[in-house]
Amino acid sequence: MNPLHTLNVDLGDRSYPIFIGHNLLENHVLLTDHIRGSSAVIVTNTTVAPLYLDAVKRALEQAPIRFDCVILPDGEQFKTLQSIETIIDKLITCRHDRKTTLIALGGGVVGDITGFAAAIYQRGVNFVQIPTTLLSQVDSSVGGKTGVNHPAGKNMIGAFYQPQCVIADTATLDTLPVRELSAGMAEVIKYGLIHDATFFDWLEQNMDQLMQRDPQSMSEAIRVSCQTKADVVAIDEKESGIRAILNLGHTFGHAIESAMGYGNWLHGEAVAVGMVMAADLSERHGWIAPDVKQRAVALLQRASLPVKAPGQMTVEKYMEIMSIDKKVDRGVIKFVLLEALGKAIITSDYQGDLLQQTLMEAS
Amino acid sequence: MNPLHTLNVDLGDRSYPIFIGHNLLENHVLLTDHIRGSSAVIVTNTTVAPLYLDAVKRALEQAPIRFDCVILPDGEQFKTLQSIETIIDKLITCRHDRKTTLIALGGGVVGDITGFAAAIYQRGVNFVQIPTTLLSQVDSSVGGKTGVNHPAGKNMIGAFYQPQCVIADTATLDTLPVRELSAGMAEVIKYGLIHDATFFDWLEQNMDQLMQRDPQSMSEAIRVSCQTKADVVAIDEKESGIRAILNLGHTFGHAIESAMGYGNWLHGEAVAVGMVMAADLSERHGWIAPDVKQRAVALLQRASLPVKAPGQMTVEKYMEIMSIDKKVDRGVIKFVLLEALGKAIITSDYQGDLLQQTLMEAS
Repeated sequence: MNPLHTLNVDLGDRSYPIFIGHNLLENHVLLTDHIRGSSAVIVTNTTVAPLYLDAVKRALEQAPIRFDCVILPDGEQFKTLQSIETIIDKLITCRHDRKTTLIALGGGVVGDITGFAAAIYQRGVNFVQIPTTLLSQVDSSVGGKTGVNHPAGKNMIGAFYQPQCVIADTATLDTLPVRELSAGMAEVIKYGLIHDATFFDWLEQNMDQLMQRDPQSMSEAIRVSCQTKADVVAIDEKESGIRAILNLGHTFGHAIESAMGYGNWLHGEAVAVGMVMAADLSERHGWIAPDVKQRAVALLQRASLPVKAPGQMTVEKYMEIMSIDKKVDRGVIKFVLLEALGKAIITSDYQGDLLQQTLMEAS
Repeated sequence: MNPLHTLNVDLGDRSYPIFIGHNLLENHVLLTDHIRGSSAVIVTNTTVAPLYLDAVKRALEQAPIRFDCVILPDGEQFKTLQSIETIIDKLITCRHDRKTTLIALGGGVVGDITGFAAAIYQRGVNFVQIPTTLLSQVDSSVGGKTGVNHPAGKNMIGAFYQPQCVIADTATLDTLPVRELSAGMAEVIKYGLIHDATFFDWLEQNMDQLMQRDPQSMSEAIRVSCQTKADVVAIDEKESGIRAILNLGHTFGHAIESAMGYGNWLHGEAVAVGMVMAADLSERHGWIAPDVKQRAVALLQRASLPVKAPGQMTVEKYMEIMSIDKKVDRGVIKFVLLEALGKAIITSDYQGDLLQQTLMEAS
């Protein structure tokens, strides 16, 4: 199949295309056309390998491109320097030179690890991303953030590094657990809230088809999400300012994830609640009409996402965790809030008593 | 002291200055003016720390800038991912955020490790280089190559990453062992051979003062060397073509280093012999007049450098090692040779029998 959409992420000499459509893994030249040298290494994990590794292998065999595979264990706990060393050992042992291409086949964790390995092997080799979750298709497809965790903090080690291309095959979403589909949808809804009221309207009209994984609607949702992120990232590639609006709901959400123990709540689930809280705080300042929060809540619920924080969260717990967040600037917590549906701002100019009310409401 | 020379390495938004002069470490603001945030980490080694760490500490204390120190063991064998982890652990433990600055105080190994740690900590923090050997002042000051070794190969893991500034204090050369001074001088002479006949003439006139570490002459030699490398790198930042002329003598030299066991011959010593061999091969093709090789030999000897390979090198040994060098393209070894004094070319268009003669002469 040919891509339904091709979106160009415009970053000067590091620009690259994102291909979006159904059954793109069957289109072998789509992948192999973006491999410059004659060798490649596929990096994937134990969950994704049984599902999609063969399709990628077939494409490379047909070219033909010599390749090797690294199959990592599945899970965020393997997003470590240790996994980077595993990939680099494979690259060296199998004599891959600086013209090789790394192919990331999997979700965000596989993409982050593989992109970082590509960034540092022989000072940088090419890589191609094949994201197989909705979250990674709409989030890590754009932005060039790669890296691994350190025992003391997430994403502490990494690089900004852009792929040669991204292939987002909506057919890979057919095998995605529903809870992960919802978690990805939280980020899709986020793009509507922060940047595109028309897209939010469209999501309201199409959420049922999306949750049924209708390929056409899914491609459209991914296209607009990637385009929105690309627009924001193009202005602020290295994250010094405006790019932070992509973190709507994340400060509240991180507090929930952290308090509940990482992994118990999915990131997207916590962000869903966080976005409701951000809308609530915005509404209390009179910045948005009451229907905005109501519409956000309704849409998140249709995507099977939580909209209320877990019972054990208290105001004190929120404040304790949020005050050590990296978005704190000289003791004041910065929030991404809404000025309107489709317009986010980054501000520390909010009223403390209204924040207290939002946190109480969410306790 | 104010810098005698300030040289701007022009790389668009990654441009930076190199300050060259005597006693620059006493000029505290020269360093602290290039530290953007309010914290820093000095990375050095057990040899350099007793000599120059206090001077750097004093500069930071005076600003004041909060700082921590990492003192690595001295030696190429510590240019590993392990050392990178040591630095990153220190950064995290001491709560350095993405506004911190890493300061590399030492030779090429310290610079390569520190630059790479800076490249990957929180996806990139600032760094400043204070090279304390002649080799690192004229070589790693320019080019942005950072990284570490892998048990299976040198510099297999790394990044291109530019510093905020380089401070080359010629006073730090006063404590340099003479053998290392000579090894650095091999690279200085190389710049004359590949790119600048006038500079080669100047070196012939000033080699005695240089070997006596005369500050004024030394600053001039460093300035022209860095300028030459900067000119070449500006054309070819990521090393796809012309930048390879910087490797004059390196293919022969690596064969000698490798055959003799790394560390027994210093890199600069092997490169000195390699440059004589490159001149010899160029002369056999009639590309350069016979006096060019003679002048190169004479100048290298005045810098106390070897000009003959060790006795145990054979033609077979050279060919065996050189044919697995990374500069081999489809089975043909590429060499950097001379078309004239001050003009190098990269070519595989040489005669095999003349190569044999050069290797026999050097056996």
